[in-house]
Amino acid sequence: VRLIDHVLDDGFELQCGLRTRGLRLRCEVHGELDADGGNAVLFPTWFAGRHAANRWIIGPGRGLDTARLCVIVVNAFGNGESSSPSNDPQLLDGGSPVPTSLWDNVRAQQALVDSLGIRSLHAVVGRSMGAQHALQWGCLHPERVERVFAFCGVPKTTAHNQLLLDAMDDALCAEDTEAGLRLAARIYLGWCYSQEFFGAADGTRAWAERQLLENFRQFDARDLLTLVRSWRAADISANPVFGGSLQAALGAIRARTLLMPISHDLIFPPRDVEAAQAAIRGAQSWLLVSPWGHRAAAPGGRPDEIATLELALKKFLLPERLTTWESLSLVMGRVLAM
Amino acid sequence: VRLIDHVLDDGFELQCGLRTRGLRLRCEVHGELDADGGNAVLFPTWFAGRHAANRWIIGPGRGLDTARLCVIVVNAFGNGESSSPSNDPQLLDGGSPVPTSLWDNVRAQQALVDSLGIRSLHAVVGRSMGAQHALQWGCLHPERVERVFAFCGVPKTTAHNQLLLDAMDDALCAEDTEAGLRLAARIYLGWCYSQEFFGAADGTRAWAERQLLENFRQFDARDLLTLVRSWRAADISANPVFGGSLQAALGAIRARTLLMPISHDLIFPPRDVEAAQAAIRGAQSWLLVSPWGHRAAAPGGRPDEIATLELALKKFLLPERLTTWESLSLVMGRVLAM
Repeated sequence: VRLIDHVLDDGFELQCGLRTRGLRLRCEVHGELDADGGNAVLFPTWFAGRHAANRWIIGPGRGLDTARLCVIVVNAFGNGESSSPSNDPQLLDGGSPVPTSLWDNVRAQQALVDSLGIRSLHAVVGRSMGAQHALQWGCLHPERVERVFAFCGVPKTTAHNQLLLDAMDDALCAEDTEAGLRLAARIYLGWCYSQEFFGAADGTRAWAERQLLENFRQFDARDLLTLVRSWRAADISANPVFGGSLQAALGAIRARTLLMPISHDLIFPPRDVEAAQAAIRGAQSWLLVSPWGHRAAAPGGRPDEIATLELALKKFLLPERLTTWESLSLVMGRVLAM
Repeated sequence: VRLIDHVLDDGFELQCGLRTRGLRLRCEVHGELDADGGNAVLFPTWFAGRHAANRWIIGPGRGLDTARLCVIVVNAFGNGESSSPSNDPQLLDGGSPVPTSLWDNVRAQQALVDSLGIRSLHAVVGRSMGAQHALQWGCLHPERVERVFAFCGVPKTTAHNQLLLDAMDDALCAEDTEAGLRLAARIYLGWCYSQEFFGAADGTRAWAERQLLENFRQFDARDLLTLVRSWRAADISANPVFGGSLQAALGAIRARTLLMPISHDLIFPPRDVEAAQAAIRGAQSWLLVSPWGHRAAAPGGRPDEIATLELALKKFLLPERLTTWESLSLVMGRVLAM
C-alpha cells in the first residue's frame, strides 16, 4: 500500500473557469500494477469519505482482490486529502469554496491514470457519489474502461436529492458553525438509513447520529460544503461532451456495467437506478435488499451484506477467481438476481 | 357553519404540570347536531393546519357528508386558533413554548364534546397528526367513540420521524428566524411528498417548496415549534392511563377502526400503519396508492385521490348513503382493498 500525490499540470482549468496551479490528487494504491496496467481498478471516494474508508473491501481474496488487481483509491477534490479549500487557497473565493465538478474530478483522474501508464482500466468501481464518478468515466472514456460497477448511485443527482443537499448547504452556511454541522448531520441522517432501520431497536438513532457526526467532524466545514455542492450538481452529461443530454451520455457507455441499488435506499431509490440501467447498453442491475438503506454494506455495516457486495464484485471483476463455495453461494441465491 | 370558542375551566392542568386559566379550543362546526348528538364527527386539525384546511372534504354529499353528519373541526393547541404561544402568554415560559401533548388536546376536546351534550361520537376522523388525536380518542374513550378513521398517521411517533422533527426544531430555533423558517420548510419538504413525486416534472420542487413555505408563513414561529414538539412527543400511551404501554393503549380501542396508509408516505410508511392495525381489534387497513406520498389526497392534491379518500370515508361512516355509482366504483375496485 502506498500513497501517491499526483500534481496536475499548471493551467488545469476547472469547469467553473478557474485556471489552477499545482492542484493535487491524492491516491492510495493497493497491489501491484501489471506491466501493461491492465489490472488497474480505479476506486474514487464518496461524499464525506477519504481513501481510508475505501479499504473495507480491498485485500487479498476480498471483493477488490489485490492478489490480482491493482486498486487505485483516488480522493475527490474537496475531501481534505486531494486539493480542497482547507489545504489550497486557490479553491477559496472570498471565503467560499470554488465549485469542483464531476467532470473536473474525472479529467484530473484521467491525467493520473495517464501518468501511471495505464491505457485501459480493468474497472472503475464507486459507491454513492463515487458511483457517479464511475459512470462519468464510462461515458467519457468508453475505450479506456472495461467495466463500470456503480453501487447505490445514479448518473444525475435527482431533484429530490438536491433538496436534501440544499438543506444541508443551508445548515453548513449557518453563523453558528458547530450548530450548523450538527444540523447538517441530522438532516442527512434521516436519509442515509431507512425508516425501518430506526424502528428496529432503541438506541439505534443515538448510535447512528454519533457515528455520522464523528464522520462529519473529520472534515473542514468548507470542504464538506464543496462535497455537498459537487454532489448536488453531479450529472454525467453536464459537460461540453454531452451538452446536458443524459440519454446521450448513458448511450455512450461501452463498458460492461453493473448497477447495484439497495432496496431501502432513500437517496438513490432502486427505481432511479433501474431507469439508468435501462438506458445503458447491456447493463445489469442486482438489488441488495437491506433495511440499512443507503448505508447497507458500507464500512461498519452488517458483515453479511458486505460479503454479498464483495461476492457481486468478485463475480463481476474476476469470475475465474471465485471459489467453489462462492460459486455455490451464487447458485443458492445469496445474490439473488445474479 | 359556525365558529365556537370553548373556554376550558380554570385549573385545567397540562401534562407538563402547568395549571391554566381560560384556555381556549376554537372549533368550526358544519351541519346540524341531532337531538342526541349521535351524528357528531370530531375532526381535529393536523400539523401546520388550521380549521379552514379541513374543509376540503366537508359538505353535503362529500366524504364528511353534512346532510347527515355534524362535523366539528377542532383546532389543536398551538395552531394559532386555539390557545397558542402567539395568543396566550400562559403558553410561553421565558419565551419558549410550553409543551402541549396529545393527551392535553384530547382531554380538552372531551370537555368540548361534553359541553355540546354529545355522549357518543359517530366518529373521530383525523389526518396525519390529527390521526394521532383520533387514535388517542379511541383508546381513552372506548365507550364514547363508535368509529376511528386514521388517515396517514400512527399511534406513536417513530424514532425516524422524531429525527426529522428534531432537525426542524433546530432550524426553527435559529438566531435568524427567517432563514430558520425556510430551512425548516426545506427539511420537511423532502419528507412530505415522495422521491418519485419530485422526479415527475421540472418545476415540481419549486411549486411544492413555495406552497409549503406559504403554509409555514401563516404561523408564528413559536406556534410552529409547539406543533413540532407536540408531534414529536405524540404517543397515545404516554399518559397515566396507559403508562407507556402502546400495546395496552391499542388493545383498549373498541371503535370500528379504519387506518388508511399511503403507499409512498415517507413519514408514516404503510408498514408502520399496518403494525398498528394488527394490534387494534378488528381494525381494517386500506392502502391509498400515490406518488404524492404524505400529501396524497390532502387539500390541493389530485382530485381523483381526494375522491378515493372521500369514498372510503363515506363507505366507512355512512354506507347506507352511498349512491349506486359509488357502490359500483367500489365493486370495480376504485378503492381496491375495500
